[in-house]
Amino acid sequence: MAARVPTEPPRGMRDVLPAEAELRDAAAATILTVYRRYGFRRIETPALESLELLTGGGGGENEKLIFKVLKRGEKLDLSAAATEADLADLGLRFDLTVPLARYYAHNHGKLPEPLRAVQIGPVWRAERPQRGRYRQFTQCDIDILGIASDIAEIELILATTEALGELGLGDLTVRINDRRLLAAMATWCGFAPDRHASVFITLDKWDKLSPDEVRRELAEAGHPEPAIARMMQLYRQAAVPPDLDAMRSRLGAPSAEAAVLTLSRVVDVVRAAAGGRFRIEFDPTLVRGMGYYTGPIFEITSSSFAAGSIAGGGRYDGMIGGLLGRHVPATGFSIGFERVVDILGKLRGRSRDETRIALLFDEAAPDLGGVLRAAQELRSQGHLVALARRMRSLGAQRAALEKHGYDGVATVDGEGRAQLQWFADRVPPPRSGSRE
Amino acid sequence: MAARVPTEPPRGMRDVLPAEAELRDAAAATILTVYRRYGFRRIETPALESLELLTGGGGGENEKLIFKVLKRGEKLDLSAAATEADLADLGLRFDLTVPLARYYAHNHGKLPEPLRAVQIGPVWRAERPQRGRYRQFTQCDIDILGIASDIAEIELILATTEALGELGLGDLTVRINDRRLLAAMATWCGFAPDRHASVFITLDKWDKLSPDEVRRELAEAGHPEPAIARMMQLYRQAAVPPDLDAMRSRLGAPSAEAAVLTLSRVVDVVRAAAGGRFRIEFDPTLVRGMGYYTGPIFEITSSSFAAGSIAGGGRYDGMIGGLLGRHVPATGFSIGFERVVDILGKLRGRSRDETRIALLFDEAAPDLGGVLRAAQELRSQGHLVALARRMRSLGAQRAALEKHGYDGVATVDGEGRAQLQWFADRVPPPRSGSRE
Repeated sequence: MAARVPTEPPRGMRDVLPAEAELRDAAAATILTVYRRYGFRRIETPALESLELLTGGGGGENEKLIFKVLKRGEKLDLSAAATEADLADLGLRFDLTVPLARYYAHNHGKLPEPLRAVQIGPVWRAERPQRGRYRQFTQCDIDILGIASDIAEIELILATTEALGELGLGDLTVRINDRRLLAAMATWCGFAPDRHASVFITLDKWDKLSPDEVRRELAEAGHPEPAIARMMQLYRQAAVPPDLDAMRSRLGAPSAEAAVLTLSRVVDVVRAAAGGRFRIEFDPTLVRGMGYYTGPIFEITSSSFAAGSIAGGGRYDGMIGGLLGRHVPATGFSIGFERVVDILGKLRGRSRDETRIALLFDEAAPDLGGVLRAAQELRSQGHLVALARRMRSLGAQRAALEKHGYDGVATVDGEGRAQLQWFADRVPPPRSGSRE
Repeated sequence: MAARVPTEPPRGMRDVLPAEAELRDAAAATILTVYRRYGFRRIETPALESLELLTGGGGGENEKLIFKVLKRGEKLDLSAAATEADLADLGLRFDLTVPLARYYAHNHGKLPEPLRAVQIGPVWRAERPQRGRYRQFTQCDIDILGIASDIAEIELILATTEALGELGLGDLTVRINDRRLLAAMATWCGFAPDRHASVFITLDKWDKLSPDEVRRELAEAGHPEPAIARMMQLYRQAAVPPDLDAMRSRLGAPSAEAAVLTLSRVVDVVRAAAGGRFRIEFDPTLVRGMGYYTGPIFEITSSSFAAGSIAGGGRYDGMIGGLLGRHVPATGFSIGFERVVDILGKLRGRSRDETRIALLFDEAAPDLGGVLRAAQELRSQGHLVALARRMRSLGAQRAALEKHGYDGVATVDGEGRAQLQWFADRVPPPRSGSRE
């Protein structure tokens, strides 16, 4: 390779250094362990899907951000190509939900019914690169396909709060609302059905804007003044503080009734099962972005991260069955994996539950076998052990090792035993049997 | 989405069903655990790289198999595009070695020196699809960058045999040769230096062809008869059975001398450290495909898989430093992850080290909280527990659960405790405390 080739990763993508890669692995393993405990099964789909699938409408705005793959061989006829569709047939997935719909349609005969699926994997979006957002990032989704009852929502919430708790994210709050309740609210207020989405976009900012700002934004979007006034009054009276019964008695609509019954049961059952481990609250201003939700929607916030939610999901009964041509009830929950890893990196600094040792040896040592035996002895004690040629300056070598996450060095003594020296600030907790 | 969208994965790619996904996860976790024990650090690079990098010569024939990604936005000018290079700027990686070279060049200042890297991740090749070979597959590589001494080879071999052993692959044999020895052999025989690669292609089939067939293939490739005769004689006398000292005394060349010294030491040290766990043998017919190897090369075979090697690697000192403009000694070992998963699937059937339980409940149960508590009780005992609505036909439900890998069902008794019933052929081994 020529020396001129740029060595940066592609624009908006990044290399993961060892400490972060190990944190990512550990976080993924913890999440998977908890979800599997709840009976979720790991599945995998290819990174590439047909553009026909990816642009089929299930991805909303993300469909504009697809990395498209050039046709290959005879299928690519440059001279006849008039549009992108003539050039590309595949694309990198932009989420794990559209592939899940295809996977389920293709494989449902071989899958458990209902299917509890867990996916962790990369997705790609050709977004304008910005701080902390990358064009390749990892998503972590659980989905329950085939359960119409709210037991699905309850399981998703219990499993996800347990996973986040085991990761060490403190003080979790689940906020929950229902798309049917939002629709009933907008109808009751008098907003035109085809303008509901616009109302929800403003409502979604309720906790960031003042009531006057909400009112102004709705007016500027062209909504009728009486509807705006009714909505402001409703939220003043029945939604702040959030009160499900007050909301139900105000709205009256049967769809609101069903939503409120579901939400009440989910909140009551989850709150009892949580036993104080986390909070769950009705939040009538919760909207969630994706258009495909049809029932309960929920988000989780943590005191470890003030700037937004760390997981979100809901019921989306319409989408999965589309490819199959039948109704498939579906609920899902997605952990913001990249955000969670960021938070953990700041919280923990480094993991203390493993010890990394450099076993120093002389390159010209006559007894390499003895060095290897000492290394195995240390490994059998649970240490991560790399061999390291002894440098002339032991001080510089120790400093470099410490910088790269080593906890100590070892040497081989006259009897062929490993002698361990921990670095000053890295003395590990006593192990059973390792001290007198 | 319209019902017409095809639901198959793209051509040559596949969906992974739960049982295999879980086997893959478990295999990857075992491999990572062993490599980390040996001090290897996990790293990650993006799936996409610049086409400039991917087509820079480090990928050999694989460079013809790149999935190329269409330029985006203003960069894509269809009317002015004359060649593929005008249309595409990125490609999906076809291996983990070319990205490692870029990663090291870009990040070496932040990385430990030497770097022991472990990578497990998908790669993509637009090959003609064929049985058992897919266009997306997982590679699993370890590389040691910055160690010129053969301690690197020794570590790679010890770590990889240990990983394969912990996976349960039996009766491992490491075969080892050296590219310098191959070159010295071909020179000694009298083959033209620019025809060595052709000689090695035939030599690589030594164990599949008869001596006459080898002779004929070399003749048909246009190699001079005296060189062919010398080679056949050399292999008859010094290489079958393989004898390093005989090979050295026959070839005499200084480069052969260096290679033989390295191989002798690696074989002796590894054999002593193996302590009978596996075999290591000099194999003068071992070639390995990639052109970038410069020193020792090795492969591992297992009695669990007769049809070929399950891991391979070697020293490739020239390549990594290319982008940096300096010499970086490098060795690597790659486990054939897809092949290993195949073998394990056939060996094990299913994993016995976990128990999967369906906790049956009545949808109309008045006490959902009690069901959730019973589920938590079972989970805290280490079971994987999914809730399942009780079907009208318990027999059919049990059959379906068994088919999907469940080991038993549980119900909640009058006192709110989980009552477990194991399926007939799935009684798990007694647990401490779980039986009287």
